[in-house]
Amino acid sequence: MTTDHPTPVPSARVARPQLLVSAARDEGVDAATAAARRLIDALLQAGDHTDTDMGDVTEQLDALAGKLLEQAPDREERLVAMWQGSGVTRHDPVTGPENALAPPVELIGQEDGSVRGVVTLGLPYQGPPSCVHGGISALLLDHTLGVANHWAGLSGMTAELTLRYRRPTPLFEPLTVTGRQVSVDGDKILTVGSLMAGDRECVTAKGLFIAKQLPRPS
Amino acid sequence: MTTDHPTPVPSARVARPQLLVSAARDEGVDAATAAARRLIDALLQAGDHTDTDMGDVTEQLDALAGKLLEQAPDREERLVAMWQGSGVTRHDPVTGPENALAPPVELIGQEDGSVRGVVTLGLPYQGPPSCVHGGISALLLDHTLGVANHWAGLSGMTAELTLRYRRPTPLFEPLTVTGRQVSVDGDKILTVGSLMAGDRECVTAKGLFIAKQLPRPS
Repeated sequence: MTTDHPTPVPSARVARPQLLVSAARDEGVDAATAAARRLIDALLQAGDHTDTDMGDVTEQLDALAGKLLEQAPDREERLVAMWQGSGVTRHDPVTGPENALAPPVELIGQEDGSVRGVVTLGLPYQGPPSCVHGGISALLLDHTLGVANHWAGLSGMTAELTLRYRRPTPLFEPLTVTGRQVSVDGDKILTVGSLMAGDRECVTAKGLFIAKQLPRPS
Repeated sequence: MTTDHPTPVPSARVARPQLLVSAARDEGVDAATAAARRLIDALLQAGDHTDTDMGDVTEQLDALAGKLLEQAPDREERLVAMWQGSGVTRHDPVTGPENALAPPVELIGQEDGSVRGVVTLGLPYQGPPSCVHGGISALLLDHTLGVANHWAGLSGMTAELTLRYRRPTPLFEPLTVTGRQVSVDGDKILTVGSLMAGDRECVTAKGLFIAKQLPRPS
């Protein structure tokens, strides 16, 4: 179904602000994943400039990974669990409390229909010296635009994403990432967002999404 | 300096294929980082579906991170080292052997002036079920386009990046990422790339880069 004119998304919603992603728990796999993030950062901070026996670190990490894998479900079974219920927002590389790649960003749906998160990024996310990698900004924005679509009530898959890099995005200070669905035209969704450092706009994004989803594993 | 017409990049180069990023070593921080990647994957594979004592895993990881940080240089000193000599390609989140976020991708400069890498991505890089996150594809492509500029002889910073998602990009199978500088017009560089699964084109990228670099820490 295609309409002649895009339908503007209402600029005011009755919904109250709401956390749209999984909050990290202080225990279980979330706590271990948070510790894994600290380790990733520590490895980069140390590099080869340390007397620590890296052979010993490697052995300990492999022993932990081996123990986890010994008891883990097989991949197909795990994928089914990941894509059920509250599992859906627990594993992605932007907000997932189970994913050590994720900073993680807590995205909150706002009353005006936008979503917003605040995050401070360290060395693992570096591109230019002391700045966020342009591809990491793209990752944060693509995901935030996707969650903005969910909050607006119609989700989809990214068809086209355009990023404009207006100034370098700093590491080590709070960044605000926002997304907002602008219009829906049939199955085409237009969504925009930005990454700000204080009141400085560092990166803006415009995404065209198609209102469809891949089937979930079952 | 701006020319009236973009200068096409020569389509044939005399240079032989060359690894353009740091090869991961089998020891030291590279080996520990590779083990950290296996742990990140294992945590996602296990999730909460394990009898492993996650409190114990958390404690061990924090002990390792604490030990590394105890001896690590301070941030400013570390940043200087990162941005000197061969350190430059050791820490980024796409190819860096010291960065557990990086898959890592080994990018090879080709005789025709393009760069190419092959990588298989697992659960930490997931977006839609069993598929690569669109933002991860953006991260790989942004970086590959940057390295393609380096290989072509004129590097810059991303000003605009447009990604077209043509079909879902699968996890768990080899992907080929390529980049190629197309033209230079004054300080404006146009670079394109793609992410392929076999002969299927999954994502294409077009980047506008500006020929400048941020100063390196010293």
